[in-house]
Amino acid sequence: MEEIQKQIEELKKRLDGVERKTPSNKISMIVFSGDLDKALAAFIIATGSVAMGLDVVMFFTFWGIPMLRDKNKIVSGKDAMSKMFGAMLPKGADQIKLSTMNMGGMGTAMIKSLMKKKNVASLPQMIEMAGQLGVKIFICEMSMDLMGFKREEMISYPDLTYCGVAKFLEEAIDSRIQLFL
Amino acid sequence: MEEIQKQIEELKKRLDGVERKTPSNKISMIVFSGDLDKALAAFIIATGSVAMGLDVVMFFTFWGIPMLRDKNKIVSGKDAMSKMFGAMLPKGADQIKLSTMNMGGMGTAMIKSLMKKKNVASLPQMIEMAGQLGVKIFICEMSMDLMGFKREEMISYPDLTYCGVAKFLEEAIDSRIQLFL
Amino acid sequence: MEEIQKQIEELKKRLDGVERKTPSNKISMIVFSGDLDKALAAFIIATGSVAMGLDVVMFFTFWGIPMLRDKNKIVSGKDAMSKMFGAMLPKGADQIKLSTMNMGGMGTAMIKSLMKKKNVASLPQMIEMAGQLGVKIFICEMSMDLMGFKREEMISYPDLTYCGVAKFLEEAIDSRIQLFL
Repeated sequence: MEEIQKQIEELKKRLDGVERKTPSNKISMIVFSGDLDKALAAFIIATGSVAMGLDVVMFFTFWGIPMLRDKNKIVSGKDAMSKMFGAMLPKGADQIKLSTMNMGGMGTAMIKSLMKKKNVASLPQMIEMAGQLGVKIFICEMSMDLMGFKREEMISYPDLTYCGVAKFLEEAIDSRIQLFL
Repeated sequence: MEEIQKQIEELKKRLDGVERKTPSNKISMIVFSGDLDKALAAFIIATGSVAMGLDVVMFFTFWGIPMLRDKNKIVSGKDAMSKMFGAMLPKGADQIKLSTMNMGGMGTAMIKSLMKKKNVASLPQMIEMAGQLGVKIFICEMSMDLMGFKREEMISYPDLTYCGVAKFLEEAIDSRIQLFL
Repeated sequence: MEEIQKQIEELKKRLDGVERKTPSNKISMIVFSGDLDKALAAFIIATGSVAMGLDVVMFFTFWGIPMLRDKNKIVSGKDAMSKMFGAMLPKGADQIKLSTMNMGGMGTAMIKSLMKKKNVASLPQMIEMAGQLGVKIFICEMSMDLMGFKREEMISYPDLTYCGVAKFLEEAIDSRIQLFL
């Protein structure tokens, strides 16, 4: 009897160990790219994941951040370098381009018109949908700081947090799928 | 005795939970890129994974799809936009280029000749090998539809399925490794 | 009593199965890209992961390899093709460029000066730090061979190994996070 109780305790300990390493039903994506095609892939995966019952976390960093700017928000008090970055990088999801076959914007316009014709949601619509579906967005503070972006110029989004790489890793470890786009 | 049985039942329940989240010995890759170098990486990983005893699932989407076109298959009945995409995008694994140092095709030719010299299989050979090894290929139907590709123009491949993002996610959740290329 | 022992044995067997598939506290990254921005992301994730208590494995392949060359090491005895690759590809972490907004080197210089101003470590500093923190670096031998790189021209790094795709997959299967950059 005592022997059996000992075996059970050992099993419990092993199970504790395994459970600590068992991730939640979650997918984490790093959106590093600022290309329209990868952004579309990211949000199609995000909304598809919600439909599959997964929690979704998207971590925007580097070139991925400008697509989250709100073109109607104007910020002041930026230094020269930040103003330059602000002017050169796209202002919002509507302005980003294809990675391939952009052809001076013609390819991007073509894909957008095709998506409309085929009833595929546009990127701004997908972002809105993601927000309604509870997709969490994290924005990398270090990249924001480097590029001189301010929080006031970002889109209004239900679940948006500013954070560092540690927060992302915490979510990623606890996820069943992790992707770098 | 009853107490012990209760503990055992609890352990079983916890194990059920952990097992439900334990993935199969599988690797899932999204091949988003249409670059020769990334395609080579994808198939080297795929065939290497088979050698390690893993099941392999490759999900081709966006620019990754054209490399699976069969240059000898001719399709008719495409609308103007689909014809244009068809003409502009590579027709098969033989036509895709390096992401870097393509130099008007010279870099790509150089790498291909080097690979031949060093007895590295070419991309079309790797695809054939993958098919023989049981690597599963999924092609994203939504991308096919957007670009106007038809099933009749795709390569003959042992295990090829057309599907949506949900099917990919299902495989990815059940995989120990997931990569986005 | 015998019945209970049987149940315990069954639980043990199931736990064995689950434990065999439970990865270590490890993150594996494939650094395929030779772009400065992705390299920075890779090393920020690497050092951040160490801070979170994760083991870190970085597998450098294709364009990711040139950033690990030591600009002060000179090698001889290369054939014409290898010399050409050697001359065309960056020589060390100091020479790689942004994927976007490089603008003939101006964008890259801008980002580097910004990083300095904001007290973000430079890429060479991050690599050194990673070495001190125990981040393991693997270099893909097949890529080295294709591009004609020699071991003697690579940086001195505490934990650097030359290997093939099988070694990477072995590490990746045993990792909680895998990323392809």
